[in-house]
Amino acid sequence: MTLTTFTRFLPVLDWGRRYDRDRFIGDMIAAVIVTVMLIPQSLAYALLAGLPPEAGLYASIAPILLYAVFGTSRVLAVGPVAVVSLMTAAAIGNIVESGTAGYIVAALTLAFLSGLMLLTLGILRLGFLANFLSHPVIAGFITASGILIAASQLRHILGVEAKGHTLIEITTSLWSHLYAVNPVTLVLGTSATAFLFWVRSGLKPLLEKTRLPPLFVDIGVKTGPVLAIIATTLAVWGFDLADQGVAVVGVVPQSLPPLTLPSFSPELISQLLVPALLISIIGFVESISVAQTLAAKKRQRIDPDQELIGLGAANIGASLTGGFPVTGGFSRSVVNYDAGAKTPAAGAFTAIGLMLAALFLTPLIHYLPKATLAATIIVAVLSLVDFSILKRAWSFSRADFAAVAATILLTLLLGVETGVTAGVATSILIHLYKTSRPHMAVVGRVPGTEHFRNVQRHTVETQPHVLSLRVDESLYFPNARYLEDQLSRYAAEKEELTDIVLLFNAVNEVDLSALESLEAINTRLRESGIRLHLSEVKGPVMDRLKRSHLLQELSGEIFLSQHDAVEALAKNNSSPA
Amino acid sequence: MTLTTFTRFLPVLDWGRRYDRDRFIGDMIAAVIVTVMLIPQSLAYALLAGLPPEAGLYASIAPILLYAVFGTSRVLAVGPVAVVSLMTAAAIGNIVESGTAGYIVAALTLAFLSGLMLLTLGILRLGFLANFLSHPVIAGFITASGILIAASQLRHILGVEAKGHTLIEITTSLWSHLYAVNPVTLVLGTSATAFLFWVRSGLKPLLEKTRLPPLFVDIGVKTGPVLAIIATTLAVWGFDLADQGVAVVGVVPQSLPPLTLPSFSPELISQLLVPALLISIIGFVESISVAQTLAAKKRQRIDPDQELIGLGAANIGASLTGGFPVTGGFSRSVVNYDAGAKTPAAGAFTAIGLMLAALFLTPLIHYLPKATLAATIIVAVLSLVDFSILKRAWSFSRADFAAVAATILLTLLLGVETGVTAGVATSILIHLYKTSRPHMAVVGRVPGTEHFRNVQRHTVETQPHVLSLRVDESLYFPNARYLEDQLSRYAAEKEELTDIVLLFNAVNEVDLSALESLEAINTRLRESGIRLHLSEVKGPVMDRLKRSHLLQELSGEIFLSQHDAVEALAKNNSSPA
Repeated sequence: MTLTTFTRFLPVLDWGRRYDRDRFIGDMIAAVIVTVMLIPQSLAYALLAGLPPEAGLYASIAPILLYAVFGTSRVLAVGPVAVVSLMTAAAIGNIVESGTAGYIVAALTLAFLSGLMLLTLGILRLGFLANFLSHPVIAGFITASGILIAASQLRHILGVEAKGHTLIEITTSLWSHLYAVNPVTLVLGTSATAFLFWVRSGLKPLLEKTRLPPLFVDIGVKTGPVLAIIATTLAVWGFDLADQGVAVVGVVPQSLPPLTLPSFSPELISQLLVPALLISIIGFVESISVAQTLAAKKRQRIDPDQELIGLGAANIGASLTGGFPVTGGFSRSVVNYDAGAKTPAAGAFTAIGLMLAALFLTPLIHYLPKATLAATIIVAVLSLVDFSILKRAWSFSRADFAAVAATILLTLLLGVETGVTAGVATSILIHLYKTSRPHMAVVGRVPGTEHFRNVQRHTVETQPHVLSLRVDESLYFPNARYLEDQLSRYAAEKEELTDIVLLFNAVNEVDLSALESLEAINTRLRESGIRLHLSEVKGPVMDRLKRSHLLQELSGEIFLSQHDAVEALAKNNSSPA
Repeated sequence: MTLTTFTRFLPVLDWGRRYDRDRFIGDMIAAVIVTVMLIPQSLAYALLAGLPPEAGLYASIAPILLYAVFGTSRVLAVGPVAVVSLMTAAAIGNIVESGTAGYIVAALTLAFLSGLMLLTLGILRLGFLANFLSHPVIAGFITASGILIAASQLRHILGVEAKGHTLIEITTSLWSHLYAVNPVTLVLGTSATAFLFWVRSGLKPLLEKTRLPPLFVDIGVKTGPVLAIIATTLAVWGFDLADQGVAVVGVVPQSLPPLTLPSFSPELISQLLVPALLISIIGFVESISVAQTLAAKKRQRIDPDQELIGLGAANIGASLTGGFPVTGGFSRSVVNYDAGAKTPAAGAFTAIGLMLAALFLTPLIHYLPKATLAATIIVAVLSLVDFSILKRAWSFSRADFAAVAATILLTLLLGVETGVTAGVATSILIHLYKTSRPHMAVVGRVPGTEHFRNVQRHTVETQPHVLSLRVDESLYFPNARYLEDQLSRYAAEKEELTDIVLLFNAVNEVDLSALESLEAINTRLRESGIRLHLSEVKGPVMDRLKRSHLLQELSGEIFLSQHDAVEALAKNNSSPA
């Protein structure tokens, strides 16, 4: 193994050797800012995932370090994120009761499986699989998830017990518990929510007017949650609100991340396989979009397959240190970038900050109300909700609109796993449906050129005994029979026809089903006295056809260009053109 | 509703009005021959489906009549067929114990659901869905099913109890019951099998040498099963072999098809939904292939959507008259055709013949050994087994080979439902994988023409500052990111580049994901000082792009032809070409 190979799998060897004082200072400042921001976020996402709050801190430590070693992005901050936490809750909530030891082990196992899958995909260089999540499906899924997350957190604001993983389950459960709303919690929760909304929508424009550098504006806004946490914790502590039924975080162990093991129970593993795969892919897509956006700004390169390895290592790390599934987060990475992080070492310093927090700050959050954490989640995720994709998709194509709409609706009504699976399935089915009835155009020559276009769109020259038909699709199993039907129709319509030329310049593939259809078409046309020709067959398709009997049996010829075909057929036939 | 509309949904109105004596005689002769052939086949397929023998007769009566009214094929004979019977056994065997009343009701329900689905698909004109079963997948599935069916019938030849729906289950079950082989049954079964093989491989060539008309040869061969049944039934009856443990058909009620109802239990229905869908699609594909093959010989037309309605009615009929799922069968339809059937009335006469058999012949088959029925099944299905598709697919394309191999292997190892589902999924995934890394070719002008081809395959002219890149695939979500990667690579490789022309003549679609990628590419290239042009954009794609912002933001132009593009860019740039 050469050094280059090592560097491919261990990017740390590349940037680590060139580390210096300037980079250290940049990294250090970014780390302090990100740490302050991450503490409430980590606690909140643990709550969202149905786990004890310390799990959020643990899930931010080892994963950040491991990503720093294996990942390719200089500034990506890995840890618990909203959508993946929601998916974790949905996956485990159906199997184990929340609050039990089994639930925690299931979360570790989910992270472990997801890590293994990411690692395997990375080693096998299968990162392209993420492309099957189309832009509209991702946009729809994120929007619907944001709504689901916000809805799921309402119970903490109201101070009631409520369950559910779909919008209907959540709202009916909330409705049936409305009699038990805790007024003090409600006041705390709505105040915190209102304050955080104001920070985003009121304070941010105010700060922007002061002409502070954008970074400081951002820091100001991002410390909002910290202020809300401090204020409400003090309120609960000072006025003994916990005695009045305000749910608080409670006793959190003062400890470094513990060493833990996932479960190897075949039953649990088989139940978690599909959720783990979905979490892996969604997490990867979210992470790589963030990483590529930030890398493009500095013309750095992100290697998708290496990213899979980095995220895989991070998740396995999370599963061995009391965490749960993690991925690269958008807001924290942007803060990291804006705060001047130069190398992944910033992540390592953040990890140290969080370790200190886990060791020394945990007693302070005993009286932190869950309602405040819920408020930070609600305000954060509502910025994910963006229905404009629906309008954009509608104006561009009904097919893309159908994919977005299906993803949003099914995620809300049937939950995250069904939603994203249905979104992917919808995009694929729509594609198959479209290609199963390909566009075909009768073409003629644009006068004075060698160029051929659709007779219905352009003024072109044609010959009555020659039909030139451009097939606007690869020929493969979904459209093989359609081609047979269409050619029979064309052959039946024009009696004077002696030659059909199939213009293959848009045929990028011919599979075995289509080959058999072409053979059938050739035979049938010959019986009707019509010769079948092909023109502009591409190299790869020609190579394929040469391995079949079609070329020997073809009643007509293969022409390099449509122009050649029309010239040759005009000479061969004495009928007037 | 006009008469034409009626005729579309009731083809009987078309042929019924022109019925005459000649057609009657042809239909009558065909009906007698088909009836004699159908009696043993119906009994055997009922056995294969795990049902009492009379269910096979019932399943052949109402369905034939209903198809005669609603179907479009003049000669298709509808009834129980091997593959669908196997799928029925696999679907119900996992839910209810064979031999119970619940099993029979489940079979009725399966036929009912399948009938409803076929009817719905027909009314919604969704017949094209069957195209998603590619030729290789169908060929692989039929071959594997033939092997599974033969293996499942071995227990009747050996006279043992054995179960299973996969090759491994069946063989291990047979192996563990080998100690209980009934020697008399074994002798009867192997003799019947050997006789039937000889009829196909020995008698058929003999008869062909006698220069009898092919129809008589066929009748001679097809009566083989009848002879085997008569001989072995007499043997069992004459020598009291049933007392020696030979399993016989036993008491069969003397009755017309009874009126029955499917179950409407939501639990049963939800368990049978997926199997019913698979049975519907497989049955439809099998039936329509037979119908189209026979129709093509007389230039008659088969309407796939009307076929769905005909088969749907037939299955609903089966479910209301004590039957089980049915479809158009290959061998019986060929016999019907060869015997001179002129109209669907032949089917009606066959139904009358089978009714008489159900009323009067059933006491005669009391001593019919199950081993003989198993022998007729084994010999019939082994003709379905054809591994040559593997060789054909391998030589044409590895992708098609993978689909066949996956279908055969998974059907044998995991059963019919998993097998066919996996086959369809494999073909779709392979297609997505191939289109996710599209072929792209740098092209240049073939000297003296306006035609552009791959620089690596043809001697062509290019200009150093213009890169003409032909994209050989529709641009959509699986390959949107790949396009971005490839264009960044090309842009980075050539420093003198000022213009990139994307030749879009093979781009049949651009979806929202690809549009966003094109917008990103345009922005990035502009930042690197390279203009992006498009040429030969097809009408439908252009219409789509006009609804986006890409055309306004495009740094270059849109050219009607690649020739125009190269001419214009040569003039615009003073650098030497």
